[in-house]
Amino acid sequence: MTLKDLGEFGFIRKISQGCLIRPQQVVRAIGDDAAAFEPLPGELTLVTTDLLVERVHFLRQATTGFDLGYKCLAVNLSDIAAMGGTAREAFISIAIPDSCELDYLEEIYRGIKHLAAKYQVNILGGDTTGSKADLVINFAVIGSVPAAEILRRDTARPGDLIFSTGQLGDSRAGLHLILNQVALDAPEWQLLIQVHSHPEPQLAEGRFLAQQPGVHAAIDVSDGLSSDLAHIVSESGVGARLDAGKIPVSESLKRFCECFKFDPAEFALAGGEDYTLLVTVAAEQADDVARQFSARFQRPLYLLGEITTTGGMELVRPDGRTTPITPSGWNHFGAADG
Amino acid sequence: MTLKDLGEFGFIRKISQGCLIRPQQVVRAIGDDAAAFEPLPGELTLVTTDLLVERVHFLRQATTGFDLGYKCLAVNLSDIAAMGGTAREAFISIAIPDSCELDYLEEIYRGIKHLAAKYQVNILGGDTTGSKADLVINFAVIGSVPAAEILRRDTARPGDLIFSTGQLGDSRAGLHLILNQVALDAPEWQLLIQVHSHPEPQLAEGRFLAQQPGVHAAIDVSDGLSSDLAHIVSESGVGARLDAGKIPVSESLKRFCECFKFDPAEFALAGGEDYTLLVTVAAEQADDVARQFSARFQRPLYLLGEITTTGGMELVRPDGRTTPITPSGWNHFGAADG
Repeated sequence: MTLKDLGEFGFIRKISQGCLIRPQQVVRAIGDDAAAFEPLPGELTLVTTDLLVERVHFLRQATTGFDLGYKCLAVNLSDIAAMGGTAREAFISIAIPDSCELDYLEEIYRGIKHLAAKYQVNILGGDTTGSKADLVINFAVIGSVPAAEILRRDTARPGDLIFSTGQLGDSRAGLHLILNQVALDAPEWQLLIQVHSHPEPQLAEGRFLAQQPGVHAAIDVSDGLSSDLAHIVSESGVGARLDAGKIPVSESLKRFCECFKFDPAEFALAGGEDYTLLVTVAAEQADDVARQFSARFQRPLYLLGEITTTGGMELVRPDGRTTPITPSGWNHFGAADG
Repeated sequence: MTLKDLGEFGFIRKISQGCLIRPQQVVRAIGDDAAAFEPLPGELTLVTTDLLVERVHFLRQATTGFDLGYKCLAVNLSDIAAMGGTAREAFISIAIPDSCELDYLEEIYRGIKHLAAKYQVNILGGDTTGSKADLVINFAVIGSVPAAEILRRDTARPGDLIFSTGQLGDSRAGLHLILNQVALDAPEWQLLIQVHSHPEPQLAEGRFLAQQPGVHAAIDVSDGLSSDLAHIVSESGVGARLDAGKIPVSESLKRFCECFKFDPAEFALAGGEDYTLLVTVAAEQADDVARQFSARFQRPLYLLGEITTTGGMELVRPDGRTTPITPSGWNHFGAADG
């Protein structure tokens, strides 16, 4: 059975199974001109969208369909988490080249549905079409958040402490291993590959933090710590100072960096695709927030540094030297960015 | 100035101008992890999404950037119209190959913003990225509709009369002229080319019809009259009979069909990209709805046929012969569809 045999509507029927996992409040799902659902009273609607293109964001031969589908949804759920919201409905558009096997497509949807079910996200629509060259996937995810609890990027204040909900750099190390096909079966690297392939969107963590007094600003770490912190800094009109010794890195990443001669802190700073949340918290409430976070999630909320009044970012080295941090994350058009 | 010089964030800053035209109820627009806005109390949220791929849906050398941007948004607004809704927020994801000029991109956004301003639609976000081969654009459009007024595909009833909010087939004729580069400057073909390039989403018409008693089902004519009517027929579990002599075709299309030896009714049936609304109306209310529509929009609501109890579609020819109608619209994977 190939995609051509199935046809567009046969394919849509096939992938529609298991898409509606929370039917309450949904009036029209897949199969009308638009999906229709009831918004939650008193909550803001959140919308995020991501376009993933073969040979730019992923290599089909280097990624299983399951991992690709999982990750496409995960990165969007991470954006909803970074607003303090609950993810609710997903819309998946996919452009499929002739070279793409039906099995691979079904695996993509299996990966998506696995994560969607875990976080109770409905798949309510999308678009399927052909493509002349590359496989292209676009996600639009709708969420909601109580208006008073929204987490923004532009509300960090000088004196806030900067925390991360997880360790940084593992995903980038996993990507390095995958791209260089280094000992992918070695048990010591499994954690790094796992973090890269199956990042866990911090939805529960985002909701929890959104409800804590003193949490001022948040962003998810998608492009890399230095790049994403730069967004908070520039949007909030503040500066930031990070303590190199406090940047949270895993034992696996330390071993990886020893083995391949990288600096763990640099690796975590440039990183990318960590999908932890970076939050700024008023200093007087920071202890309390960190303690409650640990109690709730059985792991630390990692302190990295603080928000300053100067308009730049700097790194305090273990020897006390201070060096400027420049955003070193991903720029899709390859240009220096102002 | 090229896209590489501008960089991703420079490009985003440039295109962000003029995106927020209705700031009320918008809490976060472009520039955070997700957009955030207040839903309207008592209304359902509508979401539609469309993925357009170069060489599948458009040819860059045959389409101006303005027309491409205009049309991408128009087809999504048309989906909101077909649900009886009001379009509110748009999200635009774009994957840009190196071969795509900044001027062309700016024209795309000029076309989008032209139509967005006309229908008071905010552009609140999206995604920009590179592409190795084709220009790819995804739209996600959010709308709303009072819960009691939603227009669905699956609610046509036997005995309903079938109407179109506009003439059919013009767009397909316009496409034929463009693809065959036939006398594009000839004044007699301008209307056909205009309808193809700048379809008018029937948002006001959809809202009006959604509020009329007796209007049961609706769809927009995107794939072609026969294909789109087939969706109403199969989803509602009914049949349909169309009167060939009543299918509304323009004087321009008649001249075009004489010139190029097509049957206007067949052309309108297969058509596609008309973006009129097809609605079914209870027979006892049909006169009233049609009269009020004409009074409001200064043009007819065109009667095409009626919903029947049999599960198929048929065409009554001017000579009284009846022939079955098979859906002949677009199937993106080129397969016969069950």
